[in-house]
Amino acid sequence: MPDIGIIGAGTAGLHLALLLQQAGIHTRIYTNQTAEQVATVRPQNTVSHHAPTIAREEAMGVNFWPAQEFGYQVHYHHLNVPDGPPVFRGDFLRPSRVLDYRIYLPRLMAEYENRGGTIEQRTVEPQDFDQLAGHHDLIVVAAGKRSFTEYFGERPEVSPYAKPQRHLAVGFWAGVDQTDPRAVTMSISPGHGELLDLPITTFDGWASALLFENVPGGDLEILMTQQESDDPEAYRRLVLEKLRVHHPTVFERVEQSRFALMRPGDILQGAVRPVVRNDYRLLDGGTVVLSLGDAHATVDPVTGQGANSASFEAQVAADAIIEDGVIDERFAQKVALRRRERVDGLSTWVNTMIETPTPPHLQQLLGAMSQLRTLCDEFTENFSHPHRNGDMLATPTRVEAAIARHSALAGDPTGKGRTA
Amino acid sequence: MPDIGIIGAGTAGLHLALLLQQAGIHTRIYTNQTAEQVATVRPQNTVSHHAPTIAREEAMGVNFWPAQEFGYQVHYHHLNVPDGPPVFRGDFLRPSRVLDYRIYLPRLMAEYENRGGTIEQRTVEPQDFDQLAGHHDLIVVAAGKRSFTEYFGERPEVSPYAKPQRHLAVGFWAGVDQTDPRAVTMSISPGHGELLDLPITTFDGWASALLFENVPGGDLEILMTQQESDDPEAYRRLVLEKLRVHHPTVFERVEQSRFALMRPGDILQGAVRPVVRNDYRLLDGGTVVLSLGDAHATVDPVTGQGANSASFEAQVAADAIIEDGVIDERFAQKVALRRRERVDGLSTWVNTMIETPTPPHLQQLLGAMSQLRTLCDEFTENFSHPHRNGDMLATPTRVEAAIARHSALAGDPTGKGRTA
Repeated sequence: MPDIGIIGAGTAGLHLALLLQQAGIHTRIYTNQTAEQVATVRPQNTVSHHAPTIAREEAMGVNFWPAQEFGYQVHYHHLNVPDGPPVFRGDFLRPSRVLDYRIYLPRLMAEYENRGGTIEQRTVEPQDFDQLAGHHDLIVVAAGKRSFTEYFGERPEVSPYAKPQRHLAVGFWAGVDQTDPRAVTMSISPGHGELLDLPITTFDGWASALLFENVPGGDLEILMTQQESDDPEAYRRLVLEKLRVHHPTVFERVEQSRFALMRPGDILQGAVRPVVRNDYRLLDGGTVVLSLGDAHATVDPVTGQGANSASFEAQVAADAIIEDGVIDERFAQKVALRRRERVDGLSTWVNTMIETPTPPHLQQLLGAMSQLRTLCDEFTENFSHPHRNGDMLATPTRVEAAIARHSALAGDPTGKGRTA
Repeated sequence: MPDIGIIGAGTAGLHLALLLQQAGIHTRIYTNQTAEQVATVRPQNTVSHHAPTIAREEAMGVNFWPAQEFGYQVHYHHLNVPDGPPVFRGDFLRPSRVLDYRIYLPRLMAEYENRGGTIEQRTVEPQDFDQLAGHHDLIVVAAGKRSFTEYFGERPEVSPYAKPQRHLAVGFWAGVDQTDPRAVTMSISPGHGELLDLPITTFDGWASALLFENVPGGDLEILMTQQESDDPEAYRRLVLEKLRVHHPTVFERVEQSRFALMRPGDILQGAVRPVVRNDYRLLDGGTVVLSLGDAHATVDPVTGQGANSASFEAQVAADAIIEDGVIDERFAQKVALRRRERVDGLSTWVNTMIETPTPPHLQQLLGAMSQLRTLCDEFTENFSHPHRNGDMLATPTRVEAAIARHSALAGDPTGKGRTA
């Protein structure tokens, strides 16, 4: 049986390690942070785990946060334009869940170790791969730091942007009432950006993860550039003011007296350039170095897909390792083929969502979603199958076809109840 | 909904047409032969339909020949070498079926027409594609004639041979007793070629389809070059003599007095060069022309996989047509991605089987199969998943890993019963 070295203890690395551990395949995780350190850093993301990811957690025996209790199953959408449509709703077929990764990752690290896995605290760089190849039959790079992303190199045909398209600011906030039913709200302020309001479970219970995806040069960009630590109260007031003007359906749910970060410093500001990279490289000695998760693809968080993509890729890699038993270039090509449709399709979707200005066919789709409940449901459910939204949004013709399909459904008596 | 033009009424074209018909998508088949002509030509192949293909037929409502009655579930293997192993057996998990295509294809053509489909008798050449694009949103080329194969062009990385590796002679013979249980026998005469003895259902009941895969320059090549029609009795005696010398476990089952072609002329001689071609081309107007089945890949019949591959490709194409509803290059790339692992993996397997001389790692695998029943079962079951045999045979290391895996199984008490 092969022995697998995994660099990185995020979702990609941990899910791969847990899946292989279940199959009796020896792994070793290398990471530069202890579980205790991971538990005390700033927020790193606001990712939602959708049903296929949760099903994988269930199979791995690490679904410690049942979606029935910690999840949500609805998306509310709002377009902040004059005379725009009222809030429109899409439903998932199965629930999703948002959890503070400072809870999630240390718990999975502990589980992996409790089951006999070894996590070695160590900083790894590409120049260390040859040395690691002396200990492992495969090196999986499941961390997105720059030296790793440069090591694999980009696939230009699916990496269209030269720089980040959104300037991000995310905080975990108290004082935002939950919707009923519990839901993620996606609010779009054309020309300025998107807000995702996610119901997140934190160390201190429920909070609202407000992810501002701000268009560079727009009125909301300051949420990324103004340092919260310089004057927390000023930043808090700035967020309230921007919510009021740009994202009113979220602002409506704010109790201003309680509105505050859950813990001091619970904020993350930054920007990512969406990139899909090559699947693998071969060391001089022949050992495969496989890119996984963030090392393989940097995903703008506008649709909250990074962890789901990482988990999917971990499953693809684990399956191929288990069924082949031999790690060679054929194995790596198999992984590349099996994940390409989903990874590239997700890239199509996300890159369309953050295109500036918003392309007409995306505007057209959002408008139609506000009129056609089944279309909005399909778009929502496709968060579990993100390449399908990539297929839907790939061209204006494809958007028109999706709208036509759901219009026909709405005209049918059996479909009418769903348009309400 | 798109409208699909399908050129060719073999397994690829008919399965695609029937699958789309079930989904309410309009198709039209173009072929240069009527069902009556197909029913009266010479034998065109000796293909076995394995369980996934039969399951597809069941879903399409065209499984008129239940495998329980017309099928078999066992492979017997014989290596014609001095002091070679006794005949060794592998079992399928589900039955397969061999049927004379002069029965099969006309029946499916009739079914397609009975369900409202149109088959237009017409010869099509690549220069007609632009005209057809005026009537259809997609042109599927599901026929392997030279002008079509040249149109798509080869993928050299999976088309290693410059010429055919076997010279084929196949006949439908009476007078060969069936094995008990009913089985396909694969007899290998090293340096001279393989014989597949397949239990086939013909117009006149059970027969033995003897497919001689003869090494060019070997002692059996004459079975392809000597014209049966010149002197049928001489050819019959030649076959008997070659069976006796090279394929004795089949010869043992021959009743010489009854040994004769089922019908005069029930013989096919020829050779194919295995090639995998490009997945699609775009016409100047943007219409996709998709290669399917024989147009996409020419498969040497040594493992009897052509029709299973064609049926699988039809399912992939039908799924993508149905789920997208829009035919464009993205659709074509999706089809390409989804069928590549299986098609390329089959190519690895078949190209290894017919490599001359037989490569040592294939010899090693066959030798191990004679000793390890579970390995022989896996190799047999993989006729339903041929890319898995490609993975197993891709390198000497992979063969060793497969043998090691099954040796460990044989040493395990729970695995012992299977090694008998």
